[in-house]
Amino acid sequence: MPELFTVLTPEEAYHRLEPYLSPIGRIEKVTTKEALDRVLAENIFTPDDLPPFPRSAMDGYAVRAEDTHGASESLPAYLKVIGEVTMGSIAEMALSPGEAALVHTGSILPTGTNAVVMLENTHKIDVSTIGVVRPVAAGENVLQIGEDIPQGILLLPRGHRLRSQDIGGLLALGITEVTVSQKVQVALISTGDELVSPEDKPKPGQVRNINAYTLANLTLKAGGIPLLLGIVPDNYQAMKKAAERGMSEADIIVISAGSSVSTSDLTAQVINSLGKPGILAHGIALKPGKPTILASVNGKPIFGLPGNPASAMITFDLFVTPTIYKLSGCSKPPQRHRLKARLTSNIPSAPGREDYVPVRVKEKDGELWAEPIFGKSNLISTLIKADGIAQVPLDKAGLAAGEMVMISIF
Amino acid sequence: MPELFTVLTPEEAYHRLEPYLSPIGRIEKVTTKEALDRVLAENIFTPDDLPPFPRSAMDGYAVRAEDTHGASESLPAYLKVIGEVTMGSIAEMALSPGEAALVHTGSILPTGTNAVVMLENTHKIDVSTIGVVRPVAAGENVLQIGEDIPQGILLLPRGHRLRSQDIGGLLALGITEVTVSQKVQVALISTGDELVSPEDKPKPGQVRNINAYTLANLTLKAGGIPLLLGIVPDNYQAMKKAAERGMSEADIIVISAGSSVSTSDLTAQVINSLGKPGILAHGIALKPGKPTILASVNGKPIFGLPGNPASAMITFDLFVTPTIYKLSGCSKPPQRHRLKARLTSNIPSAPGREDYVPVRVKEKDGELWAEPIFGKSNLISTLIKADGIAQVPLDKAGLAAGEMVMISIF
Repeated sequence: MPELFTVLTPEEAYHRLEPYLSPIGRIEKVTTKEALDRVLAENIFTPDDLPPFPRSAMDGYAVRAEDTHGASESLPAYLKVIGEVTMGSIAEMALSPGEAALVHTGSILPTGTNAVVMLENTHKIDVSTIGVVRPVAAGENVLQIGEDIPQGILLLPRGHRLRSQDIGGLLALGITEVTVSQKVQVALISTGDELVSPEDKPKPGQVRNINAYTLANLTLKAGGIPLLLGIVPDNYQAMKKAAERGMSEADIIVISAGSSVSTSDLTAQVINSLGKPGILAHGIALKPGKPTILASVNGKPIFGLPGNPASAMITFDLFVTPTIYKLSGCSKPPQRHRLKARLTSNIPSAPGREDYVPVRVKEKDGELWAEPIFGKSNLISTLIKADGIAQVPLDKAGLAAGEMVMISIF
Repeated sequence: MPELFTVLTPEEAYHRLEPYLSPIGRIEKVTTKEALDRVLAENIFTPDDLPPFPRSAMDGYAVRAEDTHGASESLPAYLKVIGEVTMGSIAEMALSPGEAALVHTGSILPTGTNAVVMLENTHKIDVSTIGVVRPVAAGENVLQIGEDIPQGILLLPRGHRLRSQDIGGLLALGITEVTVSQKVQVALISTGDELVSPEDKPKPGQVRNINAYTLANLTLKAGGIPLLLGIVPDNYQAMKKAAERGMSEADIIVISAGSSVSTSDLTAQVINSLGKPGILAHGIALKPGKPTILASVNGKPIFGLPGNPASAMITFDLFVTPTIYKLSGCSKPPQRHRLKARLTSNIPSAPGREDYVPVRVKEKDGELWAEPIFGKSNLISTLIKADGIAQVPLDKAGLAAGEMVMISIF
C-alpha cells in the first residue's frame, strides 16, 4: 500500500472528519422522567409561568407593604390576623388595610397583599393581632408569577443533553414527554485470525476478543448503542462483508484491526472499497494510535483502530466518543473528570507527537502525584492499573519528573 | 420542638452518620459483559497467565538472539527463513541455530527462539534468506508468559467499581461472570399538601412534585435504584406510614420535606419515632440546606432534605450520593468533573458556613469564568441555567469577583 497521507496531528485528523459528521436526524418521543442523558431534538419553550401565582418565599405573614412602613421594635405596626393560608389551598380571604394572613413558604399570596413579613420580625400580641417590628418593601419575600420560569421563553435548546435538574424543570411545567435524538448505533467489528470469544478457551496462539466489549462499554458511556458484529478473520472478503453489514445497520462503523501492519493496511483497503470519500486520515502523530484510520463513506464515519486493547480504548475515546455525541446532535458533550498532578518520573516522547500514558494517581503530603505505568504493546493491564491517562502535548519532547501534567480519569 | 443539636459543618454531620453506614451485603452474579459500573463483592484472582504463551510484540522475524550478535548494516547476520507463524495458529516449526521464522504482532513464538527482529531491521536477500542489520537481546520484542497479567495475583479487589478496561481484563482471562453488590434501593418520599403529580394540572396554590424525579435521577447516576413512594400530605400519621414502608422496602430513606419550618420539624418527629439512634444531625452550616436532617434507624440511613428543588438536589449530592456508594461497598466512588474558574462577581457568605452557588461557566480570552446565578428560594431554574456549583469554603466570608473558585459540574 502506498502511503497516501502524511501523518496528521490528532486534531488535524479529527478536523478532516468533522465536515462529514452530521446528526443522524432520527428522533423519538420519550417520557421526560426517563430522559436522563438524552439529547433534545426540539427546542423547549415554556407553556406557562412558574409559579403561576405569587407565592410566599418565607414562613410569616402576608401583608400590604405600606401597612409596615416605619415599623420598628420601639414602634411596631399592629395588624389584625384574619386567617391562615394552608399549603396547597386557595387563599379564600382578601385583605383590607391593616390586616395580615399567616402564610407558609410556598403558600399562595392572598388578594390585597404584596409582601411577606418573616415570622422572626413579628410579635404575637393576642390571638388575632401581631406587631410587625421591621418594615417590608412591596414584593419582599414574595416569589412573583413567572419569577422561577417565565412563560414563552426558550427553556432548553435542541441539542441539550438532559440532566436531572432539566428533567425537574420540564416536569414542573407539566412537560411529561420530550422529543429526543434516537441513540446512535455503533457497529463494532473485531478482526483477527487469532481471536476467540471470551467464553472459549483459547488454543495455543489464540487470544480472547476483548476489544468488542471494552468498546461496547465506552459506546454505552457516550450514550450510543453498540452492535457487536463479531469476530472476522483477517481477509479482505470477510472484512468487507462485515463492514457492509455495519454500513447498512449502524450509524458509525468501528473496526478494531489486528495489531500487525498488514491488517491495518487490509482495513484501509476494505474501507476505501466501500465508497466515497473513503479514508480521510491514516497515520496520526499519536502514541498509542499511530495506525488509526478516520474515514467517511456515504455520510457514515468509519474508524480503523489499533488492535492492542489499550490503544483501541484510547483512540476510541479520542475520536469515536466525540463522533457519537456529534451524531446524536449533542451541542455540549460532557467532559471526563480531569485533574492536575505532578509526575513521579519522566515520560519520554517526541515533539510533534501527542502521547497518552496511563498513570496511577496518588495523594502524598496533600499533593496529587501521577505515576506513569509503562508497558509493552499497550496491554490491557496498563489501563486496569491506571486511574487515568496523562497527556504529553504535541509540542513537548516528553515531560520531566516533577512537572505538572493533565490527567483524564479513565 | 426544642433545638436538640447545635449546627454542624457538613463534614461533621456526615462524620456523625458514617459509623452507622455499612454495605448492604446482598450480592448477585452478573455476566461480566454487563457489569459496567457495578461494585465487585469478591476479590478477583487471576486464574491464568496472560498471555499464556510468549508472543511477538512486533511484525518481524523470530530468532535466537545469539545469532544476531554483532550484526550491523556493513556486516549483517544472515539467517535462513524456515516458515511463517500465521496469526492464531500454533508454531509448528522448531528453530535450529541460524534459522528465523516470519512472525506478526501477537504471533506465538516458535520453539527455539527467544527474540524478535523488527521487519525494519532486516533485508530480504533471497526467497529464504534475510540479513539482520541490528542485533537483538534475548527477550527483545517478545511479550513473555504472564507479562500482561500473571497467574495468581489479585487483579481487582472487592469494592472496586468496574470500568470498561476492567471488563476487558476479566474477559481476557475468561472470567465471564462476577459477583457484585446488589444495587442499593433508595426510597423517595415527597411531603407537602401543595404537591400534585407532574401529569396533573395544579389548581391555584398547588405545585407539581418534581423532587421525586430529580432525586430519582441522581440515585440512578450513583448506581442506586429509586423507589418512588409518592406524595404524602403534611401530617404525622401519613408521613410515618410512608417512612415505615421505606424502612421495610429500601436501604436508604429520603424525605424531601415541605419547605416550611414546621414540616421540617414534623419530619424530625417522624424519624425519631421510627427507632434508635434516630436523628444524628439536624441543622447544618450549609446554604442551601440548613434544615437538612441526617439520621439512622436500625442500621438504615434516613435523610430529611429541604423541599426547595435546588436545595434538595444539592444536599442529596452532598450526603445521599456518598451514602449510596458506601452501602454498595464501593471503595472509591467516582468524582464529579471539577474545574477552577474566576468569579465574575462577588458571592456573599458567612464564615463558618459552606455555601453552594450555581454558576454558569464561560470561556473568555482563554480563561474560564464563573458567573453566579442568584435566585430566591433555590428555584429549579437556577440549576437549569447553571453548568455547575461553586463552593464557598467554610472559613471564608464570601468570595470576591476575580477570585478563583472550585466548581463541580452538576
